[in-house]
Amino acid sequence: MNGGGGPCGACKFLRRKCVKGCVFAPYFEPDHRGTAEFEAVHRVFGAKNVAKLLLRTPPNSRIYAVITLCYEALSRIRDPVYGCVAQVFNLQQQVDNLQAQLAYVQARLSIENSPNA
Amino acid sequence: MNGGGGPCGACKFLRRKCVKGCVFAPYFEPDHRGTAEFEAVHRVFGAKNVAKLLLRTPPNSRIYAVITLCYEALSRIRDPVYGCVAQVFNLQQQVDNLQAQLAYVQARLSIENSPNA
Repeated sequence: MNGGGGPCGACKFLRRKCVKGCVFAPYFEPDHRGTAEFEAVHRVFGAKNVAKLLLRTPPNSRIYAVITLCYEALSRIRDPVYGCVAQVFNLQQQVDNLQAQLAYVQARLSIENSPNA
Repeated sequence: MNGGGGPCGACKFLRRKCVKGCVFAPYFEPDHRGTAEFEAVHRVFGAKNVAKLLLRTPPNSRIYAVITLCYEALSRIRDPVYGCVAQVFNLQQQVDNLQAQLAYVQARLSIENSPNA
């Protein structure tokens, strides 16, 4: 990678020379996982869009951008209609249910503790 | 749109002729909102990727794919590092906190109701 041995996982997938300073190299290993993750982000966002986004992101935050892009891409491949927004909807539903349960149990506890109980 | 009056919001943004059966036309109006939402999905996913995804999606589910792609794209523009995955993390944290609170209040209620209380 990065001008060292072979190409990084992204350049391996794109079948291109991996040049020194390749923006993908620190985040996509040339192993099966690295190429599979790159394939997913390439399929959903396009390699050029991902490279542009990484180049506009401070180097110490790029790893988080890669992790979240991989998460969104793999979710969209698994669920083409809702992608990871399905998880946002599900979690919001769980929060609403838990808040309602908590309010109910707190109300019961407050009744049990009232002087007239 | 769609061979009728002017181009749809997507074709207007791409400055191209809006042909009859344009895959974007039912979802992107030619008003400010339609062109702004298309600009966001184009910037994050690329128009070609969005068109490919819509063409592979059954027509009656396409509206949900467009809504969730717009949601992801606007989140990624607002927060280039975490995108809408920030919301997944935040909501998961809220679920964990609410579950812990609920377990605590339920345990207190169970103590109050025990015969030796």
